[in-house]
Amino acid sequence: MTRHFMQELDELQQQLLDMAGLVEAGIHGSVQAVTERDEAPADEVFANETRINQLEISIDEGVTRLFVQNPVASDLRLLRAIGKMNTDLERMGDMAVNIAERAITLISQPQVKPRIDIPQMASLTEFMVRSSIDSFVKRDVDLANGVLASDDAVDDLRDAVYRELMEFMQQEPAAVPASVSLMFVARNLERIADHATNIAEDALFFIQGVDVRHNRRHVPR
Amino acid sequence: MTRHFMQELDELQQQLLDMAGLVEAGIHGSVQAVTERDEAPADEVFANETRINQLEISIDEGVTRLFVQNPVASDLRLLRAIGKMNTDLERMGDMAVNIAERAITLISQPQVKPRIDIPQMASLTEFMVRSSIDSFVKRDVDLANGVLASDDAVDDLRDAVYRELMEFMQQEPAAVPASVSLMFVARNLERIADHATNIAEDALFFIQGVDVRHNRRHVPR
Repeated sequence: MTRHFMQELDELQQQLLDMAGLVEAGIHGSVQAVTERDEAPADEVFANETRINQLEISIDEGVTRLFVQNPVASDLRLLRAIGKMNTDLERMGDMAVNIAERAITLISQPQVKPRIDIPQMASLTEFMVRSSIDSFVKRDVDLANGVLASDDAVDDLRDAVYRELMEFMQQEPAAVPASVSLMFVARNLERIADHATNIAEDALFFIQGVDVRHNRRHVPR
Repeated sequence: MTRHFMQELDELQQQLLDMAGLVEAGIHGSVQAVTERDEAPADEVFANETRINQLEISIDEGVTRLFVQNPVASDLRLLRAIGKMNTDLERMGDMAVNIAERAITLISQPQVKPRIDIPQMASLTEFMVRSSIDSFVKRDVDLANGVLASDDAVDDLRDAVYRELMEFMQQEPAAVPASVSLMFVARNLERIADHATNIAEDALFFIQGVDVRHNRRHVPR
């Protein structure tokens, strides 16, 4: 490998970490806008979207550029992991934007009382996002496995939020629009957690060279 | 390019078309399960999921294998388009599974009357999916542009479905659970349409060599 290749690969990883930082901030800000009924963090999420999209395209181009330079097997695995994380991070950014849009709607609606599990879902999801990125950065199998193990807990929390909100809508018809918005917030959090799970799987694939996608049903030789 | 390379590339395109066929059938079957309250097509969607996931992994591996053989620029663009379509198709398949799961829930719930726009949303979405794949197969710019132009119509239909169902939930608290299920059906259809839009954009990128992602804000030189 040329020095030039290694330098470009380092830059690519740095871009990916910059993107991950923006996406993490976006998730945190969008949830904050919901829980604190504050437009300011939502506006920041909207403002960062363009930068995230630019990074996605730039990383995508970088991966292709290095791919065609015949990298050694380990760099090839790294490039694949970067390409996949890039896609997942961009989608997580989109979901933070969805949540921020819901926050703006929610601020214009009367406050819904039972919202206990959304902050809890958000903390767990943010923890999963951070751990999945760290598992890749630190090549840490335990961190990645921790993310995979947390996915069911997020699904359980989402089910609890749905149940709670559905009961509430049946009791208080006036609260239907705001409750629906909160259901979509929960849905987006759950999908962010799914993408964190994808990243943890890609990190494991990269570290161990084993494909654990699709519920570890398929292990290519 | 070696004959071997061209043959593998042909096989890869065939696998992608097989996958597209399964995903199209899945979308159609899942919607049928909802509108006809019939479990049989939903079960078929569940049965095809494993095959779709296997094809995704196989195509992904094929793309990587050909990528590292230093393809010429046009084949490189084709490989990138195949890789991206592969990801979009797999996600569309997941959404068909989501809709099929909602169908099973809906069958166990009392029937909700106002459901007029969901079949219409479904027809338009299926049309977009088919056109996006055809635009790639036939290298047809007009078909791809037609998909991009239809995306707003799907969003409008989704908004109409949401409004209708929210009003209905406020009038009929007993219909809340089924109405929520139908909202998620509409949400999944809209996201399938978004992925069809991605595929049309990737087809245009491949045909014209121009990146139209992110609302055509970014055109790389």
